[in-house]
Amino acid sequence: MNIEERLLKGDKRACARLITMVENNDKESIDIIKKLYKYSGGAYVIGITGPPGSGKSTLTDRLTKELRKQGKKVGIVAIDPTSPFTGGAILGDRIRMSDLALDKDVFIRSMGTRGSLGGMSKATWAAVKVLDIYGCDYIFIETVGVGQSEIDIVKMADTVLMVMVPNLGDDIQAIKAGIMEIADVFAINKSDLDGADKTQVEIEMNLDLNEKRDYRPPVVKVSAGLNKDIDVLLEKLFEHKGYLEATNELEKIRTRNNKLEILKLVEEELMNLIIDRAVKEDLIEDLSKEVTLRTIDPYTAKDKIISLINK
Amino acid sequence: MNIEERLLKGDKRACARLITMVENNDKESIDIIKKLYKYSGGAYVIGITGPPGSGKSTLTDRLTKELRKQGKKVGIVAIDPTSPFTGGAILGDRIRMSDLALDKDVFIRSMGTRGSLGGMSKATWAAVKVLDIYGCDYIFIETVGVGQSEIDIVKMADTVLMVMVPNLGDDIQAIKAGIMEIADVFAINKSDLDGADKTQVEIEMNLDLNEKRDYRPPVVKVSAGLNKDIDVLLEKLFEHKGYLEATNELEKIRTRNNKLEILKLVEEELMNLIIDRAVKEDLIEDLSKEVTLRTIDPYTAKDKIISLINK
Repeated sequence: MNIEERLLKGDKRACARLITMVENNDKESIDIIKKLYKYSGGAYVIGITGPPGSGKSTLTDRLTKELRKQGKKVGIVAIDPTSPFTGGAILGDRIRMSDLALDKDVFIRSMGTRGSLGGMSKATWAAVKVLDIYGCDYIFIETVGVGQSEIDIVKMADTVLMVMVPNLGDDIQAIKAGIMEIADVFAINKSDLDGADKTQVEIEMNLDLNEKRDYRPPVVKVSAGLNKDIDVLLEKLFEHKGYLEATNELEKIRTRNNKLEILKLVEEELMNLIIDRAVKEDLIEDLSKEVTLRTIDPYTAKDKIISLINK
Repeated sequence: MNIEERLLKGDKRACARLITMVENNDKESIDIIKKLYKYSGGAYVIGITGPPGSGKSTLTDRLTKELRKQGKKVGIVAIDPTSPFTGGAILGDRIRMSDLALDKDVFIRSMGTRGSLGGMSKATWAAVKVLDIYGCDYIFIETVGVGQSEIDIVKMADTVLMVMVPNLGDDIQAIKAGIMEIADVFAINKSDLDGADKTQVEIEMNLDLNEKRDYRPPVVKVSAGLNKDIDVLLEKLFEHKGYLEATNELEKIRTRNNKLEILKLVEEELMNLIIDRAVKEDLIEDLSKEVTLRTIDPYTAKDKIISLINK
């Protein structure tokens, strides 16, 4: 059997190999996904984000185990960018997942950036498609880093879970501004700590200010470490899923997300196209030197390169 | 006098207005910069980066005051992105700069992101050009945030100063990996704290591992808060500048940086072009829906949009 047939039959090694091909930017992997794309759509994708130290990975583990009790097949993609201040993939977190990794119906992959975050977005979403075709019922996309680009990837999920912790201090003020809007469900993790109630009140108050949405995101106190109320949280995630399905919102959200993905793909390919041509003709090098010598300005240089695509 | 003439005469209000136009993505500002670009090149650009809490802003103040003693005209651009976890510009830091702001030969501007960081890069570098034409001898670009995109902007400076602090703990390990290579000079700020010597040893050891470079970055212990050894640090920045000028490396570095800037500009314009066309034809919306219905895959959708530019 070739890799396509094996993937459709739910062969875990075929799945792993295809995702590795995706990570290596292997063109064949995209051809395979194109061919099998019609078999995707069965998976429900949940994005998980939140500030550093909020216990996202442990919570993802717990939710996965809960889903396994229900016989669901689960995929986990952890976006693990090369942080400017760490340089390498932060893989330590994933190690304790090893018991999950032994489960034949759980597939876990940390995706590191190879090059740009544009590439990251492409690779993450290709991996999600592979896991979908492979037959996962649920796929978690979890951010390890917290940059804007990672958030942009996670918000393309069907449901976004925002993980908070008590005693964020002023950070809660900060989080309010940009992020609250993308969350469909809030979890307050480590809720055995003092301050969990206060955090809940703060989130609720903030939600009060934002009454535009039809669906008010629930706020659930959990403890991933103590394995407490994970089932309650999962129920809230199911409720949001049910709401989207019942109202036809799911199709709208997926269409919006597809648009974002298509535009990202267009951007990447266009840049590759133009750079290839401009490099081949030594045009970029020559123009860059001219800009240094001030015989041309960078904006005119840009125009000259863009005119290449109409050649 | 029109704004161009006023800028060339060193009119501070004309400079401020032009940078505001740049921030607002006003096309006229780019036309003006294009016209005046040949008058730029006199300024030396120093990028300042480092982990949060390392005192970059205070250090930038002190360096500016030191340069003012030498009669130099100084511009400061603080890249102040809308962080995903803060949402707004972090302007608090800049307030204490007010005494500098009263100095007619110091120009300070915090640049917030309006939209994407691609736009941030464009705006920052356009502002630097305005300050150059305006007649600054030195321009500091300082990161407030620490994302990859901010680093990518700062590393386009002529000289990059990396600000460290004692007791970074494990963070020093982390910083090693990705960032050390872009620094030309290291400052250990708050060097009155215990652990400054240890941090110095760690940086030096790391530099020992990376002997590829012709110029070994010096490591200078300073205290911006106590105004200690700022002159020593400035001397080291001058030495790097002198080295680049003497070896013709400055021209090479500027050409490399111009290339990065041109490519960013190309990327931005191409995306605007293609989105305009695809939106006008409802193509993006239609394709996004088809991808949701699985009658087309996102990669084929991407190809259809790209074919627009050859129309």
